Amino acid sequence: MARILRLNMARQSYHWEEVPPAYTGLGGRALTSRLIREEVDPSCHPLSTANKLVLAPGLLAGTFAANSGHLSAGGKSPLTGAIKEGNVGGTVSQKLARLGIKAVVLEGKPRQADGCCLVKISPEGVEFFPASEYEGLGNYRTMALLWKRFGRGVGVLSIGPAGEKCLTAASIQVSDPAGRPARAAGRGGLGALMGSKKLKALVVDDKGAPASVPLADPEGFKAAARAKGKYLTSGYEYETHRALEANTRIRHPDEIAQLDRLCDDLGLDPIEMGVTLGVLMEGGVIPWGSGSVALKMLKKVGKNDPWGLIIGNGSAFTGQALGLERVPAAKGEALPACDRRAEKGVGLTRASSPMGDDHTAGYAVAVNFLQCGCGDESLKKEGNIEFSRNPQIATAAIDATGLCPSVAFPVLDNPEALQCLVDLINACYGLSLTTVDVTALGRQILHDEKSFNREARFTRTQDHLPGFFKENLKPHNVTWDFTDEEIAQVLADL
Amino acid sequence: MARILRLNMARQSYHWEEVPPAYTGLGGRALTSRLIREEVDPSCHPLSTANKLVLAPGLLAGTFAANSGHLSAGGKSPLTGAIKEGNVGGTVSQKLARLGIKAVVLEGKPRQADGCCLVKISPEGVEFFPASEYEGLGNYRTMALLWKRFGRGVGVLSIGPAGEKCLTAASIQVSDPAGRPARAAGRGGLGALMGSKKLKALVVDDKGAPASVPLADPEGFKAAARAKGKYLTSGYEYETHRALEANTRIRHPDEIAQLDRLCDDLGLDPIEMGVTLGVLMEGGVIPWGSGSVALKMLKKVGKNDPWGLIIGNGSAFTGQALGLERVPAAKGEALPACDRRAEKGVGLTRASSPMGDDHTAGYAVAVNFLQCGCGDESLKKEGNIEFSRNPQIATAAIDATGLCPSVAFPVLDNPEALQCLVDLINACYGLSLTTVDVTALGRQILHDEKSFNREARFTRTQDHLPGFFKENLKPHNVTWDFTDEEIAQVLADL
Repeated sequence: MARILRLNMARQSYHWEEVPPAYTGLGGRALTSRLIREEVDPSCHPLSTANKLVLAPGLLAGTFAANSGHLSAGGKSPLTGAIKEGNVGGTVSQKLARLGIKAVVLEGKPRQADGCCLVKISPEGVEFFPASEYEGLGNYRTMALLWKRFGRGVGVLSIGPAGEKCLTAASIQVSDPAGRPARAAGRGGLGALMGSKKLKALVVDDKGAPASVPLADPEGFKAAARAKGKYLTSGYEYETHRALEANTRIRHPDEIAQLDRLCDDLGLDPIEMGVTLGVLMEGGVIPWGSGSVALKMLKKVGKNDPWGLIIGNGSAFTGQALGLERVPAAKGEALPACDRRAEKGVGLTRASSPMGDDHTAGYAVAVNFLQCGCGDESLKKEGNIEFSRNPQIATAAIDATGLCPSVAFPVLDNPEALQCLVDLINACYGLSLTTVDVTALGRQILHDEKSFNREARFTRTQDHLPGFFKENLKPHNVTWDFTDEEIAQVLADL
Repeated sequence: MARILRLNMARQSYHWEEVPPAYTGLGGRALTSRLIREEVDPSCHPLSTANKLVLAPGLLAGTFAANSGHLSAGGKSPLTGAIKEGNVGGTVSQKLARLGIKAVVLEGKPRQADGCCLVKISPEGVEFFPASEYEGLGNYRTMALLWKRFGRGVGVLSIGPAGEKCLTAASIQVSDPAGRPARAAGRGGLGALMGSKKLKALVVDDKGAPASVPLADPEGFKAAARAKGKYLTSGYEYETHRALEANTRIRHPDEIAQLDRLCDDLGLDPIEMGVTLGVLMEGGVIPWGSGSVALKMLKKVGKNDPWGLIIGNGSAFTGQALGLERVPAAKGEALPACDRRAEKGVGLTRASSPMGDDHTAGYAVAVNFLQCGCGDESLKKEGNIEFSRNPQIATAAIDATGLCPSVAFPVLDNPEALQCLVDLINACYGLSLTTVDVTALGRQILHDEKSFNREARFTRTQDHLPGFFKENLKPHNVTWDFTDEEIAQVLADL
């Protein structure tokens, strides 16, 4: 039976909890958002003792279904003040699931003067260690040292110097199969939340655990997993590269790669950092296109350097520091790819999503991708409220499974793909869910998140975009032209 | 006939405008808030070309009534995003009124690369001058140079390096009779708005203008002004000293005075800076109580120093930079004096005022001051909604006259004082207003401001306070215990 592991970070103690029946069908984002909704005071300061960080494998984690190893990290966002779920690949999710762990909940807050700690989870149990020797180290070095100490192949989830300093653009990094911090729960500053709990790293060692979680119907699962395979894509870093290149005019791929690596090492959201570097260029601090100066400035994050404190708090913050007006951020968060004037469905998703301006909140752009050449739906207002709503519901449901969010593409395009997803969950848990149940799950997640945000005073009056989106965009001559009322319609019934 | 002077800061041009009939009875805050409400897009970025800075003498400015020389500066606040009116003494208001100027409206926005300019207003007309020689200078040096250039006794309104850099704690300083920048429209970062318009200083030379504005009923005015004299107090700097001392544990009066002078010179709100220095101490950047290190850090503002960029953006910003949770700020602005757990009327005013957490929004505390020893009204919930509402209405009306806001004390306590205020306005303009009309004016101002804020998406859901006000306060064992609904009741009908 899977259990919930609660870590009290103030007392450095833990306890195991049976999964309440109401949580049985929840995993990933469904579970992080429900736990946050039920246990965190929405009005609390995100860095206060009242906030919690929840780590939850998806419903299909620990199975052999392709791309099922996404881990959800959830909490009240230090960057936006709203609820946040960050979704990350890597090895930790599968290992937690194989250890029978449905969620790890970080609670309480150590005193300001306390040092960082390290938590190791293995079949032998849970251990707390002091982590002073890792303080201030980047994620690359930290993970390398932890493999040396605890054995090659352990899963590691860690923060860099940015998270330790509670900077609001800080990420949580997860080890890839080679032990590198190449995967990030990047958005919303969840690394700062982990930093406020003074957890430098979580080590997950599943040696001795079963290779797969028990499946209620192994044959049925195998059949469903095979049917699914052809629809999936592997991870890609489109958003990272776009953010670091298009916002900065840095053209040399090596410099982009170095900036990306530095973000992973310091524990910073590369989308937020790409936009922030552009803001520093707009403000005259870095010459446009200079990768070398950008690298020099980014290296200040995590050191005792006030530029690092500014940059590490992201694009909106840096724009305010420099007295700039035209900053591509909404609700405190850097804008990801796709200009919403020309991709109106995307714009509506980011204006209405309880996740804020998140690139994974629902790929409304998919509708156009999948109907290549069919027209210009994304340029017109008509129909885009539905184009935004349905992908948001589908994405929330997929985020509960631990599958890669890009699975939303086939699921929205092909009824067989959705059925296949349902078959996998049914075979895994011995259930008989229908596609209607999965849609209901997606709706329930969005409802939990919207309810939290309402009480966190993050209401639809904040669901707006920077003023410059009223300006004309060539070559289609489009502007952002949705009213508050139209934006509110997207998720009105949730 | 008084006129409105519009300065186009992008083109460095100006034009005079007759006062529309609807504006005849408006002055000071009534006029700044009405103009902002009617002419500024509430959704605009505060530093964008769409925002305007309005400077308006009060209705009684240019007369010989005591303490009638307060100037209102209004705009969309760069610090909070809400409408803001800052109220400042000094010599400029009287001089503008004697020149027949009802308001100066700064419009448009120069290009980023343009230098600062200087505007001189005199009976001969309006002139624009380049101001590159004054860029980066403090307000003390700037005002001294302008007296040297344009003659001793001219009125000067200027910004320091903080305003030039558009830092959101920047003030607008006004010369006192000795030509020192000792008066500040401090709150809400209106200095950053003036900086975005690239106006370093406004020089007002009233040589040759009449000594007093024409009075419809000079004898009646003289009688009313004499009756009034006994109720007024002179300006005091209670908030400044409290902010710089109580937040920092700096005990040496000379150090407090030096910090205060530095705020005036750099053009910074001393309330915001007192709290910000306390936040830097909480974060370990300055030792508690160290005036010398505080002075050293404050001097970084306005220089090309990233600490200056952090500090000059105020307390909430600095708290985020340092990853701190317990920051005494609400809606982005530092909290002024009076702990609202023990002064509940004050708390309601600051939670509900369209001005944000402003110390001049209405002295609800006056009710207790004036009824010394009468009990503990401020500790209980009962009655405080009215204690908050009426002073807010009275203060708004007084802010329209150009009288010092502390006039609200006698006006709330003594029916004769309100009648005296009405008599002054009537004698000045040949009107026959009653006390009911003055109350209606106060209500109209608050209505204009609330309407603007609603469209600026600064709604009552933001009218809340930091979480730590739920903690118990000794010795009375009180907490902040008003609900959102109760806070909304304060100005519900406006």
